Amino acid sequence: MSISVESPADFHVHLRQGSISKLIVPHVRQGGFNLAYVMPNLKPPITTTERALEYKAELQKIDPNVEYLMTLYLSPDLTPDEIRKAKKAGIIGVKSYPRGVTTNSDGGIESYETYYPIFEAMQEVDLVLNLHGEVPSDANANIHVLNAEPTFLPHLFKLHKAFPSLRIVLEHATTRAAVEAVKTCGPTVACTITAHHLALTVDDWAGQSWNFCKPVAKYPDDRQALRDVVKEGHPRFFLGSDSAPHPPHAKSTSTPAHACAAGVYTSPILLPLAAHLLESFGALNQLKGFVSGHGRAFYGQPAEQHLNQRLVTLRKTSTKKLVDGEYILENESLVPFWAGKEIGWEIVEVTNVD
Amino acid sequence: MSISVESPADFHVHLRQGSISKLIVPHVRQGGFNLAYVMPNLKPPITTTERALEYKAELQKIDPNVEYLMTLYLSPDLTPDEIRKAKKAGIIGVKSYPRGVTTNSDGGIESYETYYPIFEAMQEVDLVLNLHGEVPSDANANIHVLNAEPTFLPHLFKLHKAFPSLRIVLEHATTRAAVEAVKTCGPTVACTITAHHLALTVDDWAGQSWNFCKPVAKYPDDRQALRDVVKEGHPRFFLGSDSAPHPPHAKSTSTPAHACAAGVYTSPILLPLAAHLLESFGALNQLKGFVSGHGRAFYGQPAEQHLNQRLVTLRKTSTKKLVDGEYILENESLVPFWAGKEIGWEIVEVTNVD
Repeated sequence: MSISVESPADFHVHLRQGSISKLIVPHVRQGGFNLAYVMPNLKPPITTTERALEYKAELQKIDPNVEYLMTLYLSPDLTPDEIRKAKKAGIIGVKSYPRGVTTNSDGGIESYETYYPIFEAMQEVDLVLNLHGEVPSDANANIHVLNAEPTFLPHLFKLHKAFPSLRIVLEHATTRAAVEAVKTCGPTVACTITAHHLALTVDDWAGQSWNFCKPVAKYPDDRQALRDVVKEGHPRFFLGSDSAPHPPHAKSTSTPAHACAAGVYTSPILLPLAAHLLESFGALNQLKGFVSGHGRAFYGQPAEQHLNQRLVTLRKTSTKKLVDGEYILENESLVPFWAGKEIGWEIVEVTNVD
Repeated sequence: MSISVESPADFHVHLRQGSISKLIVPHVRQGGFNLAYVMPNLKPPITTTERALEYKAELQKIDPNVEYLMTLYLSPDLTPDEIRKAKKAGIIGVKSYPRGVTTNSDGGIESYETYYPIFEAMQEVDLVLNLHGEVPSDANANIHVLNAEPTFLPHLFKLHKAFPSLRIVLEHATTRAAVEAVKTCGPTVACTITAHHLALTVDDWAGQSWNFCKPVAKYPDDRQALRDVVKEGHPRFFLGSDSAPHPPHAKSTSTPAHACAAGVYTSPILLPLAAHLLESFGALNQLKGFVSGHGRAFYGQPAEQHLNQRLVTLRKTSTKKLVDGEYILENESLVPFWAGKEIGWEIVEVTNVD
């Protein structure tokens, strides 16, 4: 059995900077993907058009055959003028991170109102707002990593109501509540789902830091809701891997004082993994839409508009293969998600489409 | 400020076997405790009176000054005759593990009805039933590590109704639901609470395997319920540390294939830690009941009946001390809970009471 997918598109990926980028940027295509929607959370964050274009050039230098869609980091540095400038320069979206991980934590999600002039401009020029949809933990309010996403959803509704034409993507949804929230919103609101959240539940990261990411994988019923909406083929739900590389020493937990970095790394195996997982819950017939069509349609990025169109063919393997345990380049190394586990699909052919 | 506690009693502790026991058994008294209610989950489990007495002798050989209360492991090997024999030999309780939910629980129970003749005999001779109150995870039923305890509670109610005179202890409660369940039961049902569950929530073990234990620490509201019932001084709630030693390599997570062992180790710092935590939520005036009086009363083990009575005096330190990072004996080593963190209390005097 084989499946061919036209120019797979990953609508949420971290490509970092410096030497680690040289290791991971080529993994976009190795994992079967032609398009990378690039997160702006560098150090310092990408907050200007100029810096975003510089960053895009750096990525193109590493692999010129990937289509990089660039984003800015929502911060008080942004202005409506910068938004218009960004649009003209081909920037696609603006990413909002919850308070606590921003450089200016006062300007976090509890004060979205301060960003309304920015959102007004974004709506006007049609830039996409990408939301990391979690509120910070607060023990006094019983907010913790497992309800941080549902607790955020009122913000989504409020923003959508205030800016009904603003295209919004709720990133890396992990809960039934989030799936239902996005469904009830209008056609301007979409949702990315990672590959790993289709595989994991809380039981998988309990005592296993390598499966720990933010948002954390939730309960089995939440995973079921994610699987169901993929299986349903809902056009406003599509893949954003949130592939996030962290060196092995940052993912392991060696001492009680050392908590691990949040994030799992799926890029090098992304398309086979997506096929493997969708097959596991009977959604293989939705693979093309999930990994390419739906996201491209929402973002207005049809494959035929881009250079380097490819038809990527996956084949079900007769014997299951084990995923490589580690990727190394010079002083950088990474252990991918699913390392040492079986995967039932492989990329067998890539055809350039002219 | 200082507090003196009469013969502190830890009503749930794992003392293991072999070389690790030589390291950890002395920690019972180092941590300020005179009495250890000893879990039977060895390899193989303690399922006979004879073996329990042998094990007790092994522990006494390591430290003769601790009062060891011994338990049997609920399994199909047990008979009503063995229960009566156990009672005559001074065994105190029978521990029930659900199958597969924690360390060495492969031989745990799947259905309680088959044990009703055992419980009948236990009720008759007054042996205590110690329940690990969790059901195994089951993704199809949306049962996971965070609702495994609330899902178990109907079993508690059913057992209590069927055997109203059987003394039952719900071990290491972690949820508001469990606290409320035990409160609504009659005077024959009590509950242990660990020190670490008074400190941790799910956010603390997310990405930090060293804080991972079973049952897992739950939500902030659950921790609040545990703190509240301690603060209230409810006589059927008392300390059982569930102190569970695992070597550092088993607690760290070095690779994606290696999940860490469940359990945190509190024995060597237990009494100062309990004082530190109770003070943090305004319950220091309940310390004596929580770490000695309540449990001794429920178990009918007043301090004055035992040899080696001690008055243990804690003092609030003027400068906070850091908890030792590691305990080593020959080839064994252990990293305790709270390692490297500050603690505000220390044991300053131990007076033998004749």
